[in-house]
Amino acid sequence: MIGASTRLVAIIGSPITQVKSPENFNRYFEDIGLDRAMIALDLKARHVADFVAMVRGWENLDGFVVTIPHKSAVAALIDEVSPRALWLGAVNVVRRHPDGRLSGDMTDGTGFVEALRARGFALKGKSALLIGAGAAGSAIALALAETGLADLSIQDVEAERASTLVDKLTVAFPHCCSALMVGEARPFDLVVNCSPAGMFELDPQPVAQRIIDAMPPEGMAAEVITSPELTPFLRAALARGLAVQTGVEMAMAQFQLLRKVMDGAAHV
Amino acid sequence: MIGASTRLVAIIGSPITQVKSPENFNRYFEDIGLDRAMIALDLKARHVADFVAMVRGWENLDGFVVTIPHKSAVAALIDEVSPRALWLGAVNVVRRHPDGRLSGDMTDGTGFVEALRARGFALKGKSALLIGAGAAGSAIALALAETGLADLSIQDVEAERASTLVDKLTVAFPHCCSALMVGEARPFDLVVNCSPAGMFELDPQPVAQRIIDAMPPEGMAAEVITSPELTPFLRAALARGLAVQTGVEMAMAQFQLLRKVMDGAAHV
Repeated sequence: MIGASTRLVAIIGSPITQVKSPENFNRYFEDIGLDRAMIALDLKARHVADFVAMVRGWENLDGFVVTIPHKSAVAALIDEVSPRALWLGAVNVVRRHPDGRLSGDMTDGTGFVEALRARGFALKGKSALLIGAGAAGSAIALALAETGLADLSIQDVEAERASTLVDKLTVAFPHCCSALMVGEARPFDLVVNCSPAGMFELDPQPVAQRIIDAMPPEGMAAEVITSPELTPFLRAALARGLAVQTGVEMAMAQFQLLRKVMDGAAHV
Repeated sequence: MIGASTRLVAIIGSPITQVKSPENFNRYFEDIGLDRAMIALDLKARHVADFVAMVRGWENLDGFVVTIPHKSAVAALIDEVSPRALWLGAVNVVRRHPDGRLSGDMTDGTGFVEALRARGFALKGKSALLIGAGAAGSAIALALAETGLADLSIQDVEAERASTLVDKLTVAFPHCCSALMVGEARPFDLVVNCSPAGMFELDPQPVAQRIIDAMPPEGMAAEVITSPELTPFLRAALARGLAVQTGVEMAMAQFQLLRKVMDGAAHV
């Protein structure tokens, strides 16, 4: 139970009722017997700057997680961001130092890669296709490129969004990334859906069946959508006998990373 | 356990670890099975304005309690205050309306009077002495004057502070209030210590023994200090066989009032 001495962490977003972090964090704090709690703040966009200003003087807050739609706004308001957060122009976690200074990081992509590693899927030398070049896709593309993949293809229903991300990645990783036109098919070891298609009943399946059919037997289909846990894309991959990684698994790996940042065990 | 859908209320102050409200509120919310929690915010004075600005966009916050040293600062920043809060220039509770509008009240004095009423002590026609004309003393003096006391005397170690409060009260309650010089003694039905003397081991006993000796057998000694629960003043009153009301009893009555305000059952 929260008391006057409880240390706090927060998650901000709008809407907020869909997030899983408070349950995950609060169960963890309870399990290890820490007098600490995570609160979820449903915060309107035009009050994000007030929140960040206030947090500097909020002595018993140790940090906060940032979710949609505040990740870019917060990145611009804090004192320090990690190189990957700067590159992505977004943060998903901010640590408050005792003097009120705020430093942020972006762990969306690293959380995804951690989850793949945890299940023993080696990335070095592999080829991957990433569908959806938005915020989640950009974070995961960066984390994948950092692993030493042989080849990262990016596809988006808006072709220009995919090529812009490829251009940006090519500056840092010259021989790794290319855009894949919709309709094209090649054999990929890993296919990741980073598009929102699959959240709702009538969404189209975002990965062409020809691409799923071309994957090797030891290939992996991965998803960022957490609800439903088994999206049409993952169901199609399972039907082909492929291994799958759900958005829920990614979220759990993400939680472990965020937890370390909040505990001060991971650098921000 | 706090989740993503938990509605929140807060208490702000600095320091904050000494407050009892989070335990009281959270036990109450748990008892009635409400998915609601109170969090304690240790907030630096120069960030109070940021906090109030942010609260307007904090959609899942229903209100907040204000404690030392932010009661006056918050009163000046919100949209509406009750007449008594305006008179006192301070609020101890703010309700956030769904559109972000903030309205505040000051229940420190009414909580004290409620506690006296709850134990059957009738105030109408009685005489009272109030020691300490600071923020708590002013709030309680106003609430006592509103009950129809015959006579309210006010004493402070700084005589001018007592006479300033008497002058201010006399505008609204012309024949009720007077200052009592230190050293003077008269028989009072009720004596209230609103000074901080009694919080620490070596503090002087703030009420002259001559005043305690002059009280009638059915007289009442009351205290605002919550820790220690039995202050030197209350112990002296008990030694004379008088009834006493502790600061803890006042705080519990106060909690019931705040609870009603937060529930929207009491007007702010």
